Amino acid sequence: MDTKGDREMDSNKVIKVAMLGAGTVGGGVYKLLKMRQDEMYDKIGESLELKKILVKSIPETRKDVDPALLTEDFEDIINDEEVQIVIEVMGGIEPARTFILRAMNAGKSVVSANKDLIAVHGKELLDTAEQNHVDFLFEASCAGGIPIIRPLKQCLCGNHITEVMGIVNGTTNYILTKMEKEGMEFEEALANAKELGYAEADPTADIEGLDAGRKMAIMSSIAFHSRVTFGDVYTEGITKITSSDIRHAKAMDCTIKLLGIARDTEKGIEVRVHPTLIPTNHPLASVNDVFNAVFVHGDAVDDTMFYGRGAGEMPTASAIVGDVIDVARNIHCNCLARIGCTCYKNLPIKKMADIESKYFLRLLVKDYAGVLGNIATILGNHSVSFEKLIQTPVTDDVAEIVAITDIVSEDDFKQAMDELRGKSFIEEVSSIIRVYA
Amino acid sequence: MDTKGDREMDSNKVIKVAMLGAGTVGGGVYKLLKMRQDEMYDKIGESLELKKILVKSIPETRKDVDPALLTEDFEDIINDEEVQIVIEVMGGIEPARTFILRAMNAGKSVVSANKDLIAVHGKELLDTAEQNHVDFLFEASCAGGIPIIRPLKQCLCGNHITEVMGIVNGTTNYILTKMEKEGMEFEEALANAKELGYAEADPTADIEGLDAGRKMAIMSSIAFHSRVTFGDVYTEGITKITSSDIRHAKAMDCTIKLLGIARDTEKGIEVRVHPTLIPTNHPLASVNDVFNAVFVHGDAVDDTMFYGRGAGEMPTASAIVGDVIDVARNIHCNCLARIGCTCYKNLPIKKMADIESKYFLRLLVKDYAGVLGNIATILGNHSVSFEKLIQTPVTDDVAEIVAITDIVSEDDFKQAMDELRGKSFIEEVSSIIRVYA
Repeated sequence: MDTKGDREMDSNKVIKVAMLGAGTVGGGVYKLLKMRQDEMYDKIGESLELKKILVKSIPETRKDVDPALLTEDFEDIINDEEVQIVIEVMGGIEPARTFILRAMNAGKSVVSANKDLIAVHGKELLDTAEQNHVDFLFEASCAGGIPIIRPLKQCLCGNHITEVMGIVNGTTNYILTKMEKEGMEFEEALANAKELGYAEADPTADIEGLDAGRKMAIMSSIAFHSRVTFGDVYTEGITKITSSDIRHAKAMDCTIKLLGIARDTEKGIEVRVHPTLIPTNHPLASVNDVFNAVFVHGDAVDDTMFYGRGAGEMPTASAIVGDVIDVARNIHCNCLARIGCTCYKNLPIKKMADIESKYFLRLLVKDYAGVLGNIATILGNHSVSFEKLIQTPVTDDVAEIVAITDIVSEDDFKQAMDELRGKSFIEEVSSIIRVYA
Repeated sequence: MDTKGDREMDSNKVIKVAMLGAGTVGGGVYKLLKMRQDEMYDKIGESLELKKILVKSIPETRKDVDPALLTEDFEDIINDEEVQIVIEVMGGIEPARTFILRAMNAGKSVVSANKDLIAVHGKELLDTAEQNHVDFLFEASCAGGIPIIRPLKQCLCGNHITEVMGIVNGTTNYILTKMEKEGMEFEEALANAKELGYAEADPTADIEGLDAGRKMAIMSSIAFHSRVTFGDVYTEGITKITSSDIRHAKAMDCTIKLLGIARDTEKGIEVRVHPTLIPTNHPLASVNDVFNAVFVHGDAVDDTMFYGRGAGEMPTASAIVGDVIDVARNIHCNCLARIGCTCYKNLPIKKMADIESKYFLRLLVKDYAGVLGNIATILGNHSVSFEKLIQTPVTDDVAEIVAITDIVSEDDFKQAMDELRGKSFIEEVSSIIRVYA
């Protein structure tokens, strides 16, 4: 254990770390660094010490954190030349962005879990890291504890990756699981998630698909080697999904998940987050509760999947501490900035109107002879045909049509539905949900 | 794209690679390196060139390989000072071991997929790499294309990992899937696997669990930071499993998989490969056909799973080319041997007699009053009790007992069964299979 090539192995050598933030994730990182303290020398070749933690208010900071480490002043950290690694777990765009940029400009490497920031300002952050020859690592930003960035950037980097698809938001997956398994409606399942701490007081970012959209932007950039920002991602949440939709999906051997789907196609990159019907025998269909999973398709490796906890204090800390150890190894080996930005292509983003999908459709229609023919004709004129269709009477006058279409462009399907909505024999368009194809 | 810190980015710089072997996997690596040739500079900062390939017989080598690269003499490669990376895909212990050691002693880094070799001589190979300050990477040795070694050594290295469990042999998983889904018996399913090229002419290493055992030795060493060699692994194959066992398991809401199970326990490391009943709702239960999956439990990350193709030309090539690019990045950044052997503990191996498990048991017994009481008493005297038990009449005189025990030590269970076997009311002990607990 005492030689590592010609590198110095000196147990007195210590790499010093500072942390910005001591909330839920920060508390987890603090705990985990303490738990592994004695093994750091074996893992890195040097010891690791958490020297300072920036908090908003020292008196209001969680009591399990050593008060001697706390500061309310970022200048204490930026001016401390001993600090070589800064962990950013404060969240939000500002002041996180400014602090990270200042830290890197001062020659410090940064580990961040901040998806909101990276999904928008990723290029600026990675460029600044490169200019300063430091590391900027962010494994925790994408799927909590699940290793996905390093597998994409290293293990699978011999592949041309054409698809990244995932359940990357635990809150919505918990809600949909409750709706499916216990027949709850959305509002009840959301209330249940809030009680258990799985949903925040303002759950917008989760239930509207924004959180998942940010993660998809980051993963797509890495998988396809071309910058994708949050603004490029189409997002649609789960608030309109009903337990009745889920029951009807089940009758079609499908389940409904909030999926992030990213593809590298001939017409450009498509990235979108929306409720999606997937076959019950697809590996993602059995990913339930707060668990996340990311499915990756590469031309050599074929299908792979990465599964685990996408959020939570300790799983997120696992990813952050993994990154910190990696930076520390780079410091020890004098090879910071070993793998930086991997966006060496500049691919266009496909318009949402151009994406192609199957659609799940529920309609209430007037139940008289020829209606189904009329509907099929109108849809057919817009290239919409059916893979499956079930018609059942609801009352003497009204029937329900539940159908899955063949693959059609978003644009054609929208035009077809617009025309259909104006017809007198359509009582209600109950649901339109995309189907994985 | 033109600066990477203070490193030189010179498109004329080329890292040269040699390959030992051009069989199935070698052919895949050749193809994949060619497919990605134009992107290597973007990925590494230097180009990559496959310069030489060692084959047994040039005339008998596959025709899609450029004959100008071929040599039958290892000295051509070892003496070529331009070659910085050697890919070993010849398999077997010798001469692979000697060639790899000589390559590293000559200052060349090595990427290998050779599980047979690494599971036995891992320490020697990693020590030699360290002494020569070169890389020895082997992602392809464990689960084909599935990223697992790098996630364990890097992403999850903040965790204390207590369990690694997996379906790590595609051949046996295909056979068990056919037996379950189509009711085939073992021999028929094996013949089917041979026809499709999923099983070799001599399938011993697969069906007796040896291949899986080698992979478990390698993964355990990395996960638990303590050397485990193939000789430490208990292995039991699937040749005795019948479709009737699978049907009875199903009645208990379980499926039968050839599992590798490795645990870091207070009494030492346990590593074993054997057919195992797992609940049908466990994520590993739905891993079917030739797919593999590795389940990892860490104290911070909780449960994670890695899924994909565990064998095959291109998936294995994916892992090898990922390693080659990683070595090339290390060469470019002058940080070879950045992460070497991570076995910094020296944990004992637990005896198989001391492991604890539940057991699935099928018995034919004489069907008269008091027999079940006798059985329960004998087993109870050896600390064996039941979680579930189903007794059904077979003939007027004979009944079948299908049961799952509570957790008991291997030793106690064996003694109980030895005593039971001698009793006149036992007609037959049809099956004993361990149950995941």
